[in-house]
Amino acid sequence: MKLIHDSVHGTIKLEGWMVELIDTPQFQRLRRIKQLGFADLVYPGAHHTRFEHSIGVMHVASKLTIDPHILAAALLHDIGHTPFSHSGEIILKKYMRREHEDVRDIIGKSEIGDILDRHGIDWRRVAEEVARPPVSSVIDVDRIDYLLRDAHYTGVAYGVVDFDRLVEKMHFDGSRVFVDAGGVRAVESFLISRYLMYSAVYHHHVCRIARKMFERAMEWMIEEGVVEPGDLARMDDYDVTWLMRSAEGLAGEIASRLSTRRLFKRAIYSPRGDVGVNVERVDSAKAAREIAEDAGVEDGHVIVDIPPLESSEYDVPVLVDGEFVSIAKLSPLVTALKNAQVANWRLGVYCPEEHVEKVRRAAVDYFDIKTSKQKKLSELFEF
Amino acid sequence: MKLIHDSVHGTIKLEGWMVELIDTPQFQRLRRIKQLGFADLVYPGAHHTRFEHSIGVMHVASKLTIDPHILAAALLHDIGHTPFSHSGEIILKKYMRREHEDVRDIIGKSEIGDILDRHGIDWRRVAEEVARPPVSSVIDVDRIDYLLRDAHYTGVAYGVVDFDRLVEKMHFDGSRVFVDAGGVRAVESFLISRYLMYSAVYHHHVCRIARKMFERAMEWMIEEGVVEPGDLARMDDYDVTWLMRSAEGLAGEIASRLSTRRLFKRAIYSPRGDVGVNVERVDSAKAAREIAEDAGVEDGHVIVDIPPLESSEYDVPVLVDGEFVSIAKLSPLVTALKNAQVANWRLGVYCPEEHVEKVRRAAVDYFDIKTSKQKKLSELFEF
Amino acid sequence: MKLIHDSVHGTIKLEGWMVELIDTPQFQRLRRIKQLGFADLVYPGAHHTRFEHSIGVMHVASKLTIDPHILAAALLHDIGHTPFSHSGEIILKKYMRREHEDVRDIIGKSEIGDILDRHGIDWRRVAEEVARPPVSSVIDVDRIDYLLRDAHYTGVAYGVVDFDRLVEKMHFDGSRVFVDAGGVRAVESFLISRYLMYSAVYHHHVCRIARKMFERAMEWMIEEGVVEPGDLARMDDYDVTWLMRSAEGLAGEIASRLSTRRLFKRAIYSPRGDVGVNVERVDSAKAAREIAEDAGVEDGHVIVDIPPLESSEYDVPVLVDGEFVSIAKLSPLVTALKNAQVANWRLGVYCPEEHVEKVRRAAVDYFDIKTSKQKKLSELFEF
Amino acid sequence: MKLIHDSVHGTIKLEGWMVELIDTPQFQRLRRIKQLGFADLVYPGAHHTRFEHSIGVMHVASKLTIDPHILAAALLHDIGHTPFSHSGEIILKKYMRREHEDVRDIIGKSEIGDILDRHGIDWRRVAEEVARPPVSSVIDVDRIDYLLRDAHYTGVAYGVVDFDRLVEKMHFDGSRVFVDAGGVRAVESFLISRYLMYSAVYHHHVCRIARKMFERAMEWMIEEGVVEPGDLARMDDYDVTWLMRSAEGLAGEIASRLSTRRLFKRAIYSPRGDVGVNVERVDSAKAAREIAEDAGVEDGHVIVDIPPLESSEYDVPVLVDGEFVSIAKLSPLVTALKNAQVANWRLGVYCPEEHVEKVRRAAVDYFDIKTSKQKKLSELFEF
Repeated sequence: MKLIHDSVHGTIKLEGWMVELIDTPQFQRLRRIKQLGFADLVYPGAHHTRFEHSIGVMHVASKLTIDPHILAAALLHDIGHTPFSHSGEIILKKYMRREHEDVRDIIGKSEIGDILDRHGIDWRRVAEEVARPPVSSVIDVDRIDYLLRDAHYTGVAYGVVDFDRLVEKMHFDGSRVFVDAGGVRAVESFLISRYLMYSAVYHHHVCRIARKMFERAMEWMIEEGVVEPGDLARMDDYDVTWLMRSAEGLAGEIASRLSTRRLFKRAIYSPRGDVGVNVERVDSAKAAREIAEDAGVEDGHVIVDIPPLESSEYDVPVLVDGEFVSIAKLSPLVTALKNAQVANWRLGVYCPEEHVEKVRRAAVDYFDIKTSKQKKLSELFEF
Repeated sequence: MKLIHDSVHGTIKLEGWMVELIDTPQFQRLRRIKQLGFADLVYPGAHHTRFEHSIGVMHVASKLTIDPHILAAALLHDIGHTPFSHSGEIILKKYMRREHEDVRDIIGKSEIGDILDRHGIDWRRVAEEVARPPVSSVIDVDRIDYLLRDAHYTGVAYGVVDFDRLVEKMHFDGSRVFVDAGGVRAVESFLISRYLMYSAVYHHHVCRIARKMFERAMEWMIEEGVVEPGDLARMDDYDVTWLMRSAEGLAGEIASRLSTRRLFKRAIYSPRGDVGVNVERVDSAKAAREIAEDAGVEDGHVIVDIPPLESSEYDVPVLVDGEFVSIAKLSPLVTALKNAQVANWRLGVYCPEEHVEKVRRAAVDYFDIKTSKQKKLSELFEF
Repeated sequence: MKLIHDSVHGTIKLEGWMVELIDTPQFQRLRRIKQLGFADLVYPGAHHTRFEHSIGVMHVASKLTIDPHILAAALLHDIGHTPFSHSGEIILKKYMRREHEDVRDIIGKSEIGDILDRHGIDWRRVAEEVARPPVSSVIDVDRIDYLLRDAHYTGVAYGVVDFDRLVEKMHFDGSRVFVDAGGVRAVESFLISRYLMYSAVYHHHVCRIARKMFERAMEWMIEEGVVEPGDLARMDDYDVTWLMRSAEGLAGEIASRLSTRRLFKRAIYSPRGDVGVNVERVDSAKAAREIAEDAGVEDGHVIVDIPPLESSEYDVPVLVDGEFVSIAKLSPLVTALKNAQVANWRLGVYCPEEHVEKVRRAAVDYFDIKTSKQKKLSELFEF
Repeated sequence: MKLIHDSVHGTIKLEGWMVELIDTPQFQRLRRIKQLGFADLVYPGAHHTRFEHSIGVMHVASKLTIDPHILAAALLHDIGHTPFSHSGEIILKKYMRREHEDVRDIIGKSEIGDILDRHGIDWRRVAEEVARPPVSSVIDVDRIDYLLRDAHYTGVAYGVVDFDRLVEKMHFDGSRVFVDAGGVRAVESFLISRYLMYSAVYHHHVCRIARKMFERAMEWMIEEGVVEPGDLARMDDYDVTWLMRSAEGLAGEIASRLSTRRLFKRAIYSPRGDVGVNVERVDSAKAAREIAEDAGVEDGHVIVDIPPLESSEYDVPVLVDGEFVSIAKLSPLVTALKNAQVANWRLGVYCPEEHVEKVRRAAVDYFDIKTSKQKKLSELFEF
């Protein structure tokens, strides 16, 4: 038994096998992957890492189950994460056709598998549990921990989630996570927190821009052969920063911009109603190239950011008189949040400050943007 | 200059004239009036008083103005409050035809007026400012302080209001409180906090029941001549508790029930859609008497609780391009909260546990209640 | 199972028999006894009560033992407390020759005994456990909870006690509370917190003065037959406040002074080295009378305050290689705190502001006070 | 005017020239230098950086003065810091014969000097103020911010420093920082916090070991010509990590050990009384080499850690009746802390786990260590 002091959950007790997993080089790597990527450019305290998050997720899971396979999956769910967190995820998807949750290789081919074996925990099942409830779901132990933790370190919406009640009313029946009838308010608090965190942090335009710049640099490095996508899951923020800094061309330039906070600016930042084309059919890389060409700007200096809408993420099941009902049917607040989230969506086109005017013109053409009154008002909502 | 440590705002600096006002018996009385009345029956830490709240309101006001008349009004705005806070307010309204904000008499006829005079502050203007922005408004310094403070002491929704940003973006132009374009998010945080506090605290059914029982005891004492309504603004929680305890009849019984937490229970707790009659035309005292008679229950043992809907309280003005626009027009979240609040409204009929069944039957008749599916679901939302 | 939200410990789970005990009128009375008596005159947020403290003590005890007799004793340890907490304790000692811990009668002769019986818990043993470790000891569950709680509500020294580690390293072997070798630092944090709380809160001169004034009023009421000492354990802060307010003479005057914060002032406030006589042999009531007479001041308007030194309260046993060693032998910091606490001790003589000069002269004579340089410096340490 | 949200001080307002300074690449570099070096190996939340600390120091300074030279010095005082904070400082001292406070070159030869000039702030005076009160002193704005901040991010001793009161009672007269008579308690709180932070964090043996390993790697890299000491003040944690990782030999090995948390262990960890030789005359590098040789262990695998005693750091001046008196003369607690700190001092000799036994024997000889009872007890105090 070992105690670890966690800034979110207080003292967490770790059993022997957990300590062994944490002591592996694969897990120690997570100490050097920031949970919120470049969000510390906006929230200077947001330096927390996947390391403490992973231990926190395991702690939350321990409130729902004692199955060591699930606890191990909760602890290891981010073991395959690329540097700078979600910033690197898109790369994985694009070039490796896999998600960071594909941890089977890492677990099976390292000492992690051996440790699990030695303690009678089937590593294959652990690898599977990573993508299943309660580790991954609409409301899951991963999301609960990161909402709490990101709120703590950014100072945004701290105290919104009623964690104790949520955990009390939440259940895992072996296949799904649901709340009982008394848990509707607690789920509301969870969804309000998520809404606020998306508005203020995850979709803050500066965080989006820095993330998209980083992703662009990564793509460039992969295309130029500077880095093998398959190696990313073994690297940490230090490795990737150094690779970018050492690289010539676009990656080097972006590294320098990120280090000195000379970020791209918004040429376009439009709500859905103002965009004439169907963005779901747009290839953002191709759009960026065409807009750059049209504006007479160097390739790589235009970034098109089309965030997903995540509209289905509100269907938390509530057990009412023996039947599962989606919370969206029960709570008018949840419906409200869903609509409000859609209204917060923005199409972003970003470029260096000196090119903003010409890129805007080209992008307005490309996306058939209407400069409605609504659009101007939308700027009110910025932080 | 004196420093006072406040649990919400940290250290607050008080000038000489503020200290003199605070040292008057009229202000010291506020030390003994609980801010949340009987909410400590549900949230055991909620013992804070009008005393620290009043100092806090003055502190918030000092972020908007340096006009000593307004600062004094902020400090003194609750000087006329009856014991147990809002629980006593309805009495004032019913029997005195005035609001707790009618502080003119208290200020003018006590040493408070002299102190203000001596420092060159016109007490008549102070008395007027109590009912005007920024002390009283849709978004005002009173509400801001109590949301922060009630959240702190109940532990509910702590950290939701982005106080620093709100105060930064909020302005007072001499006649109205508004936010500039950058303040929409901060007002959203304020309204979310208010929504959560209403759901979890102010409209928590146990808080409502205790408050309504207290009000019923007060009415009884006034009707029986035990207390003069005009004296309430000079009494504190200790005085009124003792009067109730000493009284025979209904007041004594309710005092004993409140002390030992043997509260009335809900016979009816229905959303608006389930209520057949137009509640806005119902006189709740008369309804209570008739339901009691129909159910064969002693008068005073049925309480009918018809809360107001407060539907207009979302119109915070936002300054956009030189024009004021209501935030409800700008923010889909605000519209959402408005609807959700309406959905949370409940008609309550309360009585001693042993009479619940017969009172329910009588009340279902009286109000033409439909026992819809919706009604049963509504119980999910309870705390 | 019921959940209660506690501002110090978070969510506390209560078993059925605990809920039944809490629902008794005897326990509900604790809702109306302030934990820190009159400390809210100095720390406006310090309104917390014996009610939440008692539940907290039970929670702390549950970290050390599962014996329901001890848990019940922890929950009930303050059931015999007089109004305004320690302020009333001296009365009990003087007039009843018993401590508030003598709860045998209250438990045995009320429904509390029945509830315990019904759940197979021997109420006689519960009554005994109240005065024994781990409920009462040098380091005990009572002290741990009140240090944490008083720090939270006053804002003083919040976060000093390393609670999680302390609880982890602390053990109860059936007869004593001790820490293992790894717990020395955690006990240091406990003792530092206690030192800071004594300096800033418990021995703050304004808190002492208000407490001593209240005790004087209580003595007067007992001597005048206004109140029976035996009834105090059934009264709450409201009852006693009202009795004082209704009383003529000294009690009524003191009630009015406490309500309007017109407190006695310090005529004398001297460290031990400045006091010529041996204070341990002085009867403070007699001293007060003689000083009043000498100064020509009305009896009851001079209060002599000789606090105990509590020098033995540092002997927390530490288990080192199978032997118990007092922490004072191991930690130079503990020795330091012990000495510093002695240096903070003050003899106080208090009286109405207008009599300070003549009472000072009489008290200097009576106690043979030297006005040393040290004495003047001692005033530096005030808050 | 710009607002920045700080997790310690809340919202901080920045004037235009401050924003310009913060936007320079020299200042942005501080975003990537961890405040506590490797302390996150023990306290997983301790990732905060010199960036937010520097802004915090400026904020604290603004409570004492409005002199822009001092405010700029406060903001820039760490501009010359080497990567991983104090871990790199010894290198600067040894190889460059200068302190990180020597910022004259960095300020004068960069755009920082130009910005200051443009705003009429003399950069030469700014460079001088960095090493003078109130930026650098026994009690200074630097220490106040880092104690508060390190407590927040480690969770140790959070809330001990009474910041508001300290700032209120602290004064800067143009040449020294002192407190007035009412500030003794607040300085005590500052010194208690410092004591606790030294015990639990700064001198935690794991933090010391990681720091000393890093310093050893840096020395090796300098001696091997891998890095120029003069370049360190331009590098960040990413640069140095990468240099170490790329290096062969000792630096590479240590980089790998730090990344995977395979740290050296304690062969010796002795209080002063157990050490036979006068440690103040010992050259720790030479001692390490000789012990390694004697033990038959590779050079670089033995580290000797002789921390300074810092015994003079308690002389905070207090203004008493027009004269300055050291707080150590006024407060028995301060004397106590001084002694306790000396008792906490440890001589450390560290090496890889497998060599602990032979290195211990060689070190016991070298330092003439007595294995007293005291020594064994000393292990009790570990975290």
